[in-house]
Amino acid sequence: MQLGMIGLGRMGGNIARRLMQHGHDVSVFDVNPASVDALAKEDATPTHSLEELVKSLAKPRAVWVMLPAGEITEKAIETLTGILEPGDIIIDGGNTFYKEDIRRAKALVAKDLHYVDVGTSGGVWGVERGYCMMIGGEKAIVDHLDPIFKTLAPGLGTIDRTPNFQGDSRSEEGYIHAGPAGSGHFVKMVHNGIEYGLMQAYAEGFDIMRGKSSEKLPEDERYTLNLTDISEVWRRGSVVSSWLLDLTAMALNESPNLEEFTGKVDDSGEGRWTINAAIEEAVSAEVLTAALFARFRSRIDNSFGEKLLSAMRNKFGGHVEGKSHAPSIQG
Amino acid sequence: MQLGMIGLGRMGGNIARRLMQHGHDVSVFDVNPASVDALAKEDATPTHSLEELVKSLAKPRAVWVMLPAGEITEKAIETLTGILEPGDIIIDGGNTFYKEDIRRAKALVAKDLHYVDVGTSGGVWGVERGYCMMIGGEKAIVDHLDPIFKTLAPGLGTIDRTPNFQGDSRSEEGYIHAGPAGSGHFVKMVHNGIEYGLMQAYAEGFDIMRGKSSEKLPEDERYTLNLTDISEVWRRGSVVSSWLLDLTAMALNESPNLEEFTGKVDDSGEGRWTINAAIEEAVSAEVLTAALFARFRSRIDNSFGEKLLSAMRNKFGGHVEGKSHAPSIQG
Amino acid sequence: MQLGMIGLGRMGGNIARRLMQHGHDVSVFDVNPASVDALAKEDATPTHSLEELVKSLAKPRAVWVMLPAGEITEKAIETLTGILEPGDIIIDGGNTFYKEDIRRAKALVAKDLHYVDVGTSGGVWGVERGYCMMIGGEKAIVDHLDPIFKTLAPGLGTIDRTPNFQGDSRSEEGYIHAGPAGSGHFVKMVHNGIEYGLMQAYAEGFDIMRGKSSEKLPEDERYTLNLTDISEVWRRGSVVSSWLLDLTAMALNESPNLEEFTGKVDDSGEGRWTINAAIEEAVSAEVLTAALFARFRSRIDNSFGEKLLSAMRNKFGGHVEGKSHAPSIQG
Amino acid sequence: MQLGMIGLGRMGGNIARRLMQHGHDVSVFDVNPASVDALAKEDATPTHSLEELVKSLAKPRAVWVMLPAGEITEKAIETLTGILEPGDIIIDGGNTFYKEDIRRAKALVAKDLHYVDVGTSGGVWGVERGYCMMIGGEKAIVDHLDPIFKTLAPGLGTIDRTPNFQGDSRSEEGYIHAGPAGSGHFVKMVHNGIEYGLMQAYAEGFDIMRGKSSEKLPEDERYTLNLTDISEVWRRGSVVSSWLLDLTAMALNESPNLEEFTGKVDDSGEGRWTINAAIEEAVSAEVLTAALFARFRSRIDNSFGEKLLSAMRNKFGGHVEGKSHAPSIQG
Repeated sequence: MQLGMIGLGRMGGNIARRLMQHGHDVSVFDVNPASVDALAKEDATPTHSLEELVKSLAKPRAVWVMLPAGEITEKAIETLTGILEPGDIIIDGGNTFYKEDIRRAKALVAKDLHYVDVGTSGGVWGVERGYCMMIGGEKAIVDHLDPIFKTLAPGLGTIDRTPNFQGDSRSEEGYIHAGPAGSGHFVKMVHNGIEYGLMQAYAEGFDIMRGKSSEKLPEDERYTLNLTDISEVWRRGSVVSSWLLDLTAMALNESPNLEEFTGKVDDSGEGRWTINAAIEEAVSAEVLTAALFARFRSRIDNSFGEKLLSAMRNKFGGHVEGKSHAPSIQG
Repeated sequence: MQLGMIGLGRMGGNIARRLMQHGHDVSVFDVNPASVDALAKEDATPTHSLEELVKSLAKPRAVWVMLPAGEITEKAIETLTGILEPGDIIIDGGNTFYKEDIRRAKALVAKDLHYVDVGTSGGVWGVERGYCMMIGGEKAIVDHLDPIFKTLAPGLGTIDRTPNFQGDSRSEEGYIHAGPAGSGHFVKMVHNGIEYGLMQAYAEGFDIMRGKSSEKLPEDERYTLNLTDISEVWRRGSVVSSWLLDLTAMALNESPNLEEFTGKVDDSGEGRWTINAAIEEAVSAEVLTAALFARFRSRIDNSFGEKLLSAMRNKFGGHVEGKSHAPSIQG
Repeated sequence: MQLGMIGLGRMGGNIARRLMQHGHDVSVFDVNPASVDALAKEDATPTHSLEELVKSLAKPRAVWVMLPAGEITEKAIETLTGILEPGDIIIDGGNTFYKEDIRRAKALVAKDLHYVDVGTSGGVWGVERGYCMMIGGEKAIVDHLDPIFKTLAPGLGTIDRTPNFQGDSRSEEGYIHAGPAGSGHFVKMVHNGIEYGLMQAYAEGFDIMRGKSSEKLPEDERYTLNLTDISEVWRRGSVVSSWLLDLTAMALNESPNLEEFTGKVDDSGEGRWTINAAIEEAVSAEVLTAALFARFRSRIDNSFGEKLLSAMRNKFGGHVEGKSHAPSIQG
Repeated sequence: MQLGMIGLGRMGGNIARRLMQHGHDVSVFDVNPASVDALAKEDATPTHSLEELVKSLAKPRAVWVMLPAGEITEKAIETLTGILEPGDIIIDGGNTFYKEDIRRAKALVAKDLHYVDVGTSGGVWGVERGYCMMIGGEKAIVDHLDPIFKTLAPGLGTIDRTPNFQGDSRSEEGYIHAGPAGSGHFVKMVHNGIEYGLMQAYAEGFDIMRGKSSEKLPEDERYTLNLTDISEVWRRGSVVSSWLLDLTAMALNESPNLEEFTGKVDDSGEGRWTINAAIEEAVSAEVLTAALFARFRSRIDNSFGEKLLSAMRNKFGGHVEGKSHAPSIQG
């Protein structure tokens, strides 16, 4: 099948590669000509503008936009909207906020264009493992693009099948049609919200194990635990085995004390939007929120609010910071 | 190798079975004679009292206690202490609080007995998958028991090896010697704390996806998502794939609405002790705590504290319960 | 000073009353004629439409809108915008989202109208205690309205003055000009966010004290505490004394077990928007969020997520709901 | 009435003073002779050992121990136990863990000694405001000591009485007999747990208001709020007025940016024990726990867990710390 790919970064480039390796025909464009040239050497059709990209495709065209979410993606889609012709399809494979998808899809309908949003998980491993995709849009259009998605998805692989699986067989191959416009990005958004929660659960557990060697604990209740071995042992047979644990084991094997990291942890829109969605629905989401807030907190030294706590303690009890009789282990 | 097994429930019985299937020689005892008889048919040596069990073993004896943590285990170990002879070994494979292990190990040293604590993960799947074991105790004793642990552990299996793994090779087979007495149960305790956090992260994410169909949301922002398909699709290629997700996919495949569950969720000691440990170490463990509290909250209708909130609102604002203009989706 | 008041509910009616009691001249309108008649008997100028209300006032007019936030307020302001004349002032005293204020103020500038947002705290007690007001808008306009705000505010009263107070003297009287349009409602929004947190802190503390009588605790560690007396004793000399505690003491004095409440606690927009603001600013706000989520959770029986937890426990451990050996006190 | 006071620090010295100012007869002891001398000048009977202190009192003696909780208090009480005679009373006015009280009271009964635990709130302000006291112990003994408690308590003062108050009149004066041994400290412990929650609620709210001036927010949605004025304005007529807010207003009036504080906030045993109690009772206490964890987190730079989050992000997405496209306001 033929596809245009806009944005040849880590994700877009690899997606194009995986498609070509499986016989699809891909036209590529990126603002960086070197990225275009690199893909051209791997048999992609190089183009040097959106117009040229569009012209290189047969109707009905399918153009996959793989750019950073926000203004850059928005602008590319606006330009495409002016160039494409009735029946053509725009696919947004980035991390766009689902309400933007809903708005865009409505606007495009007026021009007889189709919009498909694809939440794509798998990160840098996707080119090898395949990409897990959550897709939103019109059924007929998603069905039309099926050869693309089928190729990009991991497939059944070596993972045990769910016994007597009753659902959509595509989900067993690693992609789903989640629903109308925006639903693909919505499911991907929640996926990332969950991801934050899972990561924070491991982080706290390893913190507690590491803290168990503190000299502030009674001597016979201290353990100096080998976290590399623990992350490895849990990979087999335990309840907490997961892909994130596999990565944790790799990281701790390479660097048991993780000195090369500051611990200032970024977050992206999805984690935040997940909490906003929970609030809109009046769903309690303590764990996902705590995971997000832990990242916020990791990036500052001390907050004004914390200074205020010290100021209050000083006012009511004459407490001076750092002069407490309190037991304090960590820090 | 020879082992005595006390307690032939789901865990103890299966552990005995797995050992015998691999050529070990197991004497068994349970207060329920039917359980003893069943194992005897599978070639175990049946015994009908702790004394008889001990006598059936050659010195130095190794006796594995697989009973509910707390009084029952405590009593069995007290009795054994009176029967065993210098050099013999007691293994506690249950979910004992690690400070109890420390206390016990000290007491047993005085009698020249050895104590080994084994945190065992794997649940009902262990007989098939193997048991992930975290072991505390004296190095020489743990080494002596290695044939037992090696048999029970899952082994390398089909799971990808961590590249250039530098750690203890036992951890790659699914068991570790964590450190002195209590450390095995301590690591298992944190494992369960993490387990709660992981489970709650998924639970909240699926709640948010389910809530997205609410009629209280704007009509064009609603999605009716197929949670069975979503749990399945994430199993391959996504960042949140895990064994708990595999189980989630199984559960949702069998029962998409989970009507057979009340949602009143039990907790066991480990989740609580993990938080206590975090507090002792002054480690922030928001996610693990929120996961525990969510279970507490799930088991009641409404708390007195919630009534107090309503009472305060009534006092300051004349608010009557259920008469708010506020947007309320869930509930 | 002359003021038009639209909306004569609990808040609007009492504000009009307090103004008239202090010599201001108030024209009133409400869709319910009975409310208009009632105020007319207390010397207000009755009007029966927005047009009539506007005509009853001298230029530059000041019209206070005291209606439920959202569509109703929006519509009233739209209508007023068409009737008022250059130089006139619209005051929104409700709980409008501050971003709406920003939008409105911009739109009104084009018509040479002025917009003032007033966050008003004090609830049903305001008519007696005075209203604490947080005001956003142009400085000249807020200064012009000062006689109104000064009358509505509590004044210095009997509360001890902050020693050597350096700030704006209006804040000592119970009102402030917070900044440009929307800032009044923004500060009021955060006020309500804090309010949720304070309430939840008391609620949890009283829950823990009440739970201390549980028969599941060891007999010699149980206390049956008199919560009415405790709420009263903390009112004098303790660190936790507050107006919310005064109300708590009243409520527990009238009804020690609060049987007349279900504990299903409503929330309004401010608590939600406060969390959204925290997320936009990347500020960790665990306590305010937990307080909001506790209200969400109070309104449902059990969540789908909780059922999912039970389903996972059943899958990995064969656990059956309610059959745990775990210690469980509450519930 | 006659009382012996052991420990003449900020709390003990002031308690002795307040008692003497109201005509009570106080013998004093402290390891620091200068403290003894200072009180002697204010008419206290100076003593230079526990033995001398005991001898200076008539039977049945009442000795108030006002020392740091833990070993120091424990040792003083052990010594006293050996010196006192049947019928004498030991009062522990410190912040002892209530389970210690239960243990001690049982041990003292065997020697016909009485034990009273007094949780004392009021901090450095107590000498002026009076002390709010929560008292545990035998009814007859607490009644016997009533003149002491009545003097130390704030009394009705100028605070509005709860209408038609039905409870124990002592609670209106600022002290209560909470129940048997340990209950006084238990109630005080929960008081402090609530205190943490209240403080954190204000801290987060002020953080959100301060963060609203960030240049990372859209320009027309920024406000530069005067936090001194806001803390002052809420003191009168708002729902969030409290003594802690009074102190906040004082602190912000003296130092609007609180530069003299690091924001590394200590905690003491009570906050931790409150969470342990909640866990024992299976009561969800999210807000009180989050407040405690915020203090833990404030005292460290970055946790190992946070480094682990960065390591995982690097592994799955190739993310480099600090290179995110994510919106980040604070930090």
